[in-house]
Amino acid sequence: MVTVGIIGAGRIGKVHITSITNFIQNAVIKTVADPFLNDETAAWAKKMGIKNTTKDYKEIINDPEIDAVLICSSTDTHSPISIEAIKAGKHVFCEKPIDHDVDKIMAVVDALKGTDIKYQVGFNRRFDHNFMALRDAVASGKIGDPHIIRVSSRDPEPPSIDYVKVSGGLFLDMMIHDFDMVRFLAGCDATEVYTEAAVLVDPGIGEAGDVDTAVVTLKMENGALAVIDNSRQAVYGYDQRAEVFGSKGMAMNANDSSSNVVVATKDGVTGEVPLHFFLERYMNAYAKEVGEFIEAIEKGTDTPLGVMDGLKPVLMGLAAKKSLDEHRPVKISEIMELK
Amino acid sequence: MVTVGIIGAGRIGKVHITSITNFIQNAVIKTVADPFLNDETAAWAKKMGIKNTTKDYKEIINDPEIDAVLICSSTDTHSPISIEAIKAGKHVFCEKPIDHDVDKIMAVVDALKGTDIKYQVGFNRRFDHNFMALRDAVASGKIGDPHIIRVSSRDPEPPSIDYVKVSGGLFLDMMIHDFDMVRFLAGCDATEVYTEAAVLVDPGIGEAGDVDTAVVTLKMENGALAVIDNSRQAVYGYDQRAEVFGSKGMAMNANDSSSNVVVATKDGVTGEVPLHFFLERYMNAYAKEVGEFIEAIEKGTDTPLGVMDGLKPVLMGLAAKKSLDEHRPVKISEIMELK
Amino acid sequence: MVTVGIIGAGRIGKVHITSITNFIQNAVIKTVADPFLNDETAAWAKKMGIKNTTKDYKEIINDPEIDAVLICSSTDTHSPISIEAIKAGKHVFCEKPIDHDVDKIMAVVDALKGTDIKYQVGFNRRFDHNFMALRDAVASGKIGDPHIIRVSSRDPEPPSIDYVKVSGGLFLDMMIHDFDMVRFLAGCDATEVYTEAAVLVDPGIGEAGDVDTAVVTLKMENGALAVIDNSRQAVYGYDQRAEVFGSKGMAMNANDSSSNVVVATKDGVTGEVPLHFFLERYMNAYAKEVGEFIEAIEKGTDTPLGVMDGLKPVLMGLAAKKSLDEHRPVKISEIMELK
Amino acid sequence: MVTVGIIGAGRIGKVHITSITNFIQNAVIKTVADPFLNDETAAWAKKMGIKNTTKDYKEIINDPEIDAVLICSSTDTHSPISIEAIKAGKHVFCEKPIDHDVDKIMAVVDALKGTDIKYQVGFNRRFDHNFMALRDAVASGKIGDPHIIRVSSRDPEPPSIDYVKVSGGLFLDMMIHDFDMVRFLAGCDATEVYTEAAVLVDPGIGEAGDVDTAVVTLKMENGALAVIDNSRQAVYGYDQRAEVFGSKGMAMNANDSSSNVVVATKDGVTGEVPLHFFLERYMNAYAKEVGEFIEAIEKGTDTPLGVMDGLKPVLMGLAAKKSLDEHRPVKISEIMELK
Repeated sequence: MVTVGIIGAGRIGKVHITSITNFIQNAVIKTVADPFLNDETAAWAKKMGIKNTTKDYKEIINDPEIDAVLICSSTDTHSPISIEAIKAGKHVFCEKPIDHDVDKIMAVVDALKGTDIKYQVGFNRRFDHNFMALRDAVASGKIGDPHIIRVSSRDPEPPSIDYVKVSGGLFLDMMIHDFDMVRFLAGCDATEVYTEAAVLVDPGIGEAGDVDTAVVTLKMENGALAVIDNSRQAVYGYDQRAEVFGSKGMAMNANDSSSNVVVATKDGVTGEVPLHFFLERYMNAYAKEVGEFIEAIEKGTDTPLGVMDGLKPVLMGLAAKKSLDEHRPVKISEIMELK
Repeated sequence: MVTVGIIGAGRIGKVHITSITNFIQNAVIKTVADPFLNDETAAWAKKMGIKNTTKDYKEIINDPEIDAVLICSSTDTHSPISIEAIKAGKHVFCEKPIDHDVDKIMAVVDALKGTDIKYQVGFNRRFDHNFMALRDAVASGKIGDPHIIRVSSRDPEPPSIDYVKVSGGLFLDMMIHDFDMVRFLAGCDATEVYTEAAVLVDPGIGEAGDVDTAVVTLKMENGALAVIDNSRQAVYGYDQRAEVFGSKGMAMNANDSSSNVVVATKDGVTGEVPLHFFLERYMNAYAKEVGEFIEAIEKGTDTPLGVMDGLKPVLMGLAAKKSLDEHRPVKISEIMELK
Repeated sequence: MVTVGIIGAGRIGKVHITSITNFIQNAVIKTVADPFLNDETAAWAKKMGIKNTTKDYKEIINDPEIDAVLICSSTDTHSPISIEAIKAGKHVFCEKPIDHDVDKIMAVVDALKGTDIKYQVGFNRRFDHNFMALRDAVASGKIGDPHIIRVSSRDPEPPSIDYVKVSGGLFLDMMIHDFDMVRFLAGCDATEVYTEAAVLVDPGIGEAGDVDTAVVTLKMENGALAVIDNSRQAVYGYDQRAEVFGSKGMAMNANDSSSNVVVATKDGVTGEVPLHFFLERYMNAYAKEVGEFIEAIEKGTDTPLGVMDGLKPVLMGLAAKKSLDEHRPVKISEIMELK
Repeated sequence: MVTVGIIGAGRIGKVHITSITNFIQNAVIKTVADPFLNDETAAWAKKMGIKNTTKDYKEIINDPEIDAVLICSSTDTHSPISIEAIKAGKHVFCEKPIDHDVDKIMAVVDALKGTDIKYQVGFNRRFDHNFMALRDAVASGKIGDPHIIRVSSRDPEPPSIDYVKVSGGLFLDMMIHDFDMVRFLAGCDATEVYTEAAVLVDPGIGEAGDVDTAVVTLKMENGALAVIDNSRQAVYGYDQRAEVFGSKGMAMNANDSSSNVVVATKDGVTGEVPLHFFLERYMNAYAKEVGEFIEAIEKGTDTPLGVMDGLKPVLMGLAAKKSLDEHRPVKISEIMELK
């Protein structure tokens, strides 16, 4: 049984609390810490069977009974809290991204060196049944060598302008998931990125210095070409699909809906829109990723997504941003040379 | 080159004229006969390259240059004209049904005895790409022995009450195609029929002594169970689908639409309705059935659908009607004992 | 908070224990009783947080702290334990069927008279997302008045011959779910049943006095016609689909699979088989049905499926059996006249 | 009735001869010219009802009875024969591309100036039912303003290396159709192009100086971003799909297959591969494009695809090639400034 502390009880923190409580038999949450903890959240945590709630995450770091922490706080705290937890000998599950700053991620990499700490980054989509099955189709060799990878990722509605301003921008906030997905599907890293992007959804996003629509092409180490498209607003719901085309065939997945009923009337044959957003779409994936983290701790195996898997999508995002700014293809190695 | 005469230049006659002219290289239409032939139709026929038009079908029967006739006239004339044509040594393609009266069909059977005449009945759906592929899936053994066969057949709109009155009723006019389809998919004959039916679409159909909605179950010689459902009105268009479930799997087909485009909006993901009616849906099948008739003549092979294939669905239709009238399962052998 | 006792810790009992523990916040299981309780099950129950385990279900009946019981024991005990529990003032959730014997069901009906006891029967499919959405499409009026209802229900593999012998037969053991589904989709009762059935899967099932393949047609009170097909063996997995055709359109659902990935190779475009069996397919539905039972207790509302909803599919099953035996359509009123 | 001459009786010439003969009532082919005309082709043409066959296309140019010519000869002859035909007062349907050289296309543009000659370029996909329906969904406003356009186009097998060498390369030979499609779907021109490309299918293609796999992104005049992917070899068949994502929704089409039958076995649920190649997929589109050309002549209206629609995809192809060579985004205006 792994004893866990949760740092950050916002939306994603609550998702993990719920998952662990309901689905993960070999983990128990001892403490939840959040600087903005209110009575309502504290009461909810008690009802979920959690012993302690606190505003001070150091109670978790300093608790010798706690084996592992889940860092669900704001992005700027991910790196320093990771390092504190590592130093305290705790296994760490850190929400994505570790940071927008490469140096701060490298500080975590350095902290991990020489330890046996398990570190996992929260790219939840890898644990979704449809994306896992797509990866399996590639990994099984059914479609041969990957030649072209297409990933579409479109949110149902744009975030607030206030959020946009602190988000790190579309490439680090939203497309970072798709950079990870391209690596997952290709089974290798990207070497070069080229960005086309525009402000088509909301001029306010442009005024905040960001874009809301983008098509990014990538060269992969194995020779495959990849393309990601993002939009901050798909009015029909959360649209998350991918396709891998290879030397022996093609595999693709589709969105999930709340049911597969179709209704035929004189106006057409109509099915349901995709599940609205990530909490609906990926609830099972959130449980699965934490389940695998706990299992890695118990079995002493590698986590499915280590700290370098947290770094590389950030490099891709920074390259994509640079490509947009300089209107040219940008090599990943221009951002950072990985040995 | 097979020289053809067309008897009956109504809707289905014109379909065959168009098909032969455009698609069938080894047939030429010499004469079109129709008692109600008007100037417009005659001019159209000329434009299609047909030499003669006449009100008297006997000009076709008596023309020694004509090898084959297509009987597209009203149902009550199918049997007598078939017999006349057979006696004149002509090959015969006869629209379905040959007749609603078993004796009149048997008269055609008798007329054919001892001759080399090719006789084909116009069950066009057997030549549709989706139904052929379904039959192929069964015949290939992919799904093993058939256990359950389901056929749905729903028209986009009911015929006029005047038509209903002379149609022979839903079982002989509409479901007769599905009786043929069940035989085609099962690869054998039916032995027993049970009918549930109702007037749900238009009370006028009930007043005319017919039903507009029916579910008929059948036992097949090979042990399979079959079920057909019919409605005179599917507001979303012509709905023609089938499914065969067997010991090793299941095969099913779907409707065709004018395109496969789907549009996702906040209201759903909508594709097109099925093609509206039989002229749109089965145009290619009409060409294919006549093409195979001509080929059978040229090669001296059997036609794909002989006179007994015209008789059997009529027996099934009469049994279905009797089942409805007497509210009990009816064996085909009660209608006629086939040796 | 509703305190619950579980009677029967076999497969379905464990499903309910898991659901309540993980998903139902307002219920707590105090005691699990099973006459064959072994150490393994007892240990599992403890791990799930259940205080008591016993071989004697009377400990549950006699426990004044327990508000509600879930009867998951063998079918022959459903009626007597229901009556005991009702007399002890407990709310009852009873697995389907209440009994195969109408008198025994009526004894439960009588026991409930004049009480405020909540009674629910376990027809889980009504709580499946795809069947609920289909019912919603009908209930919303989108497809108008129902005219034809089709339900397919095919198991991935036949049960053991030993089970077949005590199962009550295909109509009471398997098709009973579909009888309930037809009532659910039509929104009314059936008035008449006609059965075609055969032994096509396993001769041993025939030797045990049962059938393994059946097509049953039904007349519904609202005039609609319905047809159910069942097979004990669909080699491609659990096949559970339905379609409702009406005056304004048609609605249909499909199977769920473990992912929606399709792989295109030179051999075809292949998607996954349906989820293998009911535990995979209906796990969420099991949680939902018990959740609504608990909610009905807490809010004092009717349960979604009362004791009469348990009776009526049994009447339909008995009529279907009689129809098969007597080879004729059978009215439900021949089995029992419902006032 | 429009009298037509066909120049070039290779594969595509034969397609047009067949279409016109079978489907286009208001056109008649008087003469077919091909420098390599053999007896077999001449006999076939006679059988199709064509009066004259010749090796000298000038017989067509000089025949005052001929109203229109279809230029189906090799690409290098398109421009000079177009100009000869225009000077002789004939309407011209020219297969794509007019030329790979902008100057030669501009010579045709110049020749047309001040005349009433109808000129049409053979981008057949615009006349395919699925692409037309997709364009209609965009043009109707159903999906709002286009934001992202995705076009996939993959051939079932690579051409011979000999063909590759004279083809003009992937961008002018193959992707040129997709450049036209992007213009069609967006309803406007591209302004900039960026190319990622690779040799992944056959090293011989690389040795011949070409690529066989490419992902090209484009900026459109209306602000939309577009992406095209091409492969010379999709082993599952001719894969031609597109998707338009916009402010109010998304529309996408799919491939056509020879039937829509799916077969479920224990190994999966399998449908048919796409129609094998362009002759199967676009046969109806070839007839429709020539039908509209003839109609434009008869009604005096514009052709659906004028000479500038022939020029612009060539500019896009040249820009894509330049982008690949110079590894940077290239503006269309760098290739040619269009006023």
